[in-house]
Amino acid sequence: MVANPITEIRLEDMDKIALGGAFLGTGGGGDPYIGRLMSEQAIRENGPVKVLDVDALADDALVVPVAMMGAPTVLLEKLPRGDEAQAALTSLENYLGHKADAVFCIEAGGLNSTIPIAVAASAGLPIIDGDGMGRAFPELQMVSMTIHNIAACPMVIADEKGNSLVLNTVDNLSTEKFARVITVEMGGAALIALYPMTGAEAKKAVLRGSLSLIHSIGKIIYDEQSANRNPAERLKSELNGISLFEGRVIDVERRTEGGFARGTAKIEGIGTHDGDTLILRFQNEFLMAETKQGEVRAMTPDLICLLDLETGSPITTEQIRYGFRVIVFGLPCDPQWRSEKGLELVGPRYFGYDQEYAPIESINC
Amino acid sequence: MVANPITEIRLEDMDKIALGGAFLGTGGGGDPYIGRLMSEQAIRENGPVKVLDVDALADDALVVPVAMMGAPTVLLEKLPRGDEAQAALTSLENYLGHKADAVFCIEAGGLNSTIPIAVAASAGLPIIDGDGMGRAFPELQMVSMTIHNIAACPMVIADEKGNSLVLNTVDNLSTEKFARVITVEMGGAALIALYPMTGAEAKKAVLRGSLSLIHSIGKIIYDEQSANRNPAERLKSELNGISLFEGRVIDVERRTEGGFARGTAKIEGIGTHDGDTLILRFQNEFLMAETKQGEVRAMTPDLICLLDLETGSPITTEQIRYGFRVIVFGLPCDPQWRSEKGLELVGPRYFGYDQEYAPIESINC
Repeated sequence: MVANPITEIRLEDMDKIALGGAFLGTGGGGDPYIGRLMSEQAIRENGPVKVLDVDALADDALVVPVAMMGAPTVLLEKLPRGDEAQAALTSLENYLGHKADAVFCIEAGGLNSTIPIAVAASAGLPIIDGDGMGRAFPELQMVSMTIHNIAACPMVIADEKGNSLVLNTVDNLSTEKFARVITVEMGGAALIALYPMTGAEAKKAVLRGSLSLIHSIGKIIYDEQSANRNPAERLKSELNGISLFEGRVIDVERRTEGGFARGTAKIEGIGTHDGDTLILRFQNEFLMAETKQGEVRAMTPDLICLLDLETGSPITTEQIRYGFRVIVFGLPCDPQWRSEKGLELVGPRYFGYDQEYAPIESINC
Repeated sequence: MVANPITEIRLEDMDKIALGGAFLGTGGGGDPYIGRLMSEQAIRENGPVKVLDVDALADDALVVPVAMMGAPTVLLEKLPRGDEAQAALTSLENYLGHKADAVFCIEAGGLNSTIPIAVAASAGLPIIDGDGMGRAFPELQMVSMTIHNIAACPMVIADEKGNSLVLNTVDNLSTEKFARVITVEMGGAALIALYPMTGAEAKKAVLRGSLSLIHSIGKIIYDEQSANRNPAERLKSELNGISLFEGRVIDVERRTEGGFARGTAKIEGIGTHDGDTLILRFQNEFLMAETKQGEVRAMTPDLICLLDLETGSPITTEQIRYGFRVIVFGLPCDPQWRSEKGLELVGPRYFGYDQEYAPIESINC
């Protein structure tokens, strides 16, 4: 889809961004609703947020993604106070001895597509139209920056009590491991500022246009819902999405383990899928979609996105429950993820599935 | 005991300090042997280490304890490379923007009574004749600095791979909790630099004379062993120690859990204790000594120290095993630990024993 470029985020854009972020979040990244409230408050107080094309950055500018880390299930119950994300950014700036020139979204989905907008508004900074994943993923090293050898550290991780740590690790996978145990010790959710990079590095690494895409997707959902239509049809045609399944959720198994929300959801087919069952496996995000016969229909890093058949709203892994009628969408991931290095980071084998990656278009042609 | 003040640590002092440190370590703090080797190497390369009375410090001097953190059982198998403790100190200095003027021992026992000597020699710094515990304890906040409201943070924790984190937490108990999970993630052992303090603060907080005491105790053990005598008698008389039990170890249960070595050792009485059994409970250090009838003979924060009846050498909780013939000593702790705040930090209830603290002299009068 060719998204309409967004150049400024105003108050009235936030509900669209939250909807689009929930859709691209592939079930994870946390409920964007909390970040939406934070952003709306910050925009009300400080005015709209300027959205920058990454090419508009000076090569020596300092760019810093900010995000929440943790299990979405916990984030729902442990509301951020509002200034912790800003505090994480400020700590990192103090450690580096430089002020940031722009923030951006580490992932194009869920809470982490809205939190950075709140930070940008409060700090009076622009936000880059781009992100590090083109979707949401559950671990810190799963970003395009890792493909481009940009270090996650120095990284700051902070909680709402006032605890704050600066990490300097030997590689980005180690950053993830340390940050994860610290997040668990912080009660399951933490605020982070990481991958500080120059403008020149950002131009190489950032996946472009994510905020515009999120906003356009959100606008489709919003417009269709406002007209009492289900957005599925328009999303399918405009996103070149693949409609994988329609059905009713008959079972959800979910546990919070090692700082992640892990589990499976079973969907019993309806309509043209009557008699079939689709099983979704998730670790914060939906990672695998397979039939009960074990036939894989979509797999990470391709996107598996759920919409509620009644309301047209995106459904996250922490919201999904028995009885929901859903449509399961598949979308091809950013081409970077299909490289050897990309698949090493986020392919099915990394997540423990004994499965060779096959592009969603080739499986469902 | 009135210890002979030590003003300089030379190569030939290290075996005595290692012996004295193992004794005062009350079974924990790690095997001083590794730290002894590191110190000997560093003294050989850089010359003797100056030992400073804390009162000789300028009030605005910067003083930093350095230590190893983790389960002694792990430390035995995960040898430090030698420069990690120095690296932790340097990281903290860089973070603070100040060079340290002196180092000191966070605890007067085990590995952590020898590691700082190696760091002092390598860094060309003096070491303070004092420590933060007057013995060894298993957790970071269990130091006289906490009693005097001195913060453990900023703290640096580093491993041998090159990972390094700076902690800023809301209190010293939080520092312990974060540092513990990080230590576990580092493989069970880490190097730390923490409790950075001014000379003025050190004069209030440091328990004085520990290095001299360790050296004097070590010299007694060394001299008696050299003369083929068991040092127990001389230690008992010179330290005003209480001889609690003599017997043979008949059972040891030990597990590494949450970054600690936890367990119990059962000792069957011999000689005058024939027919009795003493049970020692430990978490890195020996914390409780009680009879099989449940009668407590000594408890934390008082010191429970073991000597091998054959060799006269101190026995640590990771060395103790079936068949060892041992003598169990009790020593009164530093008076600060018997204050209300002291007992809150290190009394029996903190460690989960439903027991009111009673001084060892009153139990065994």
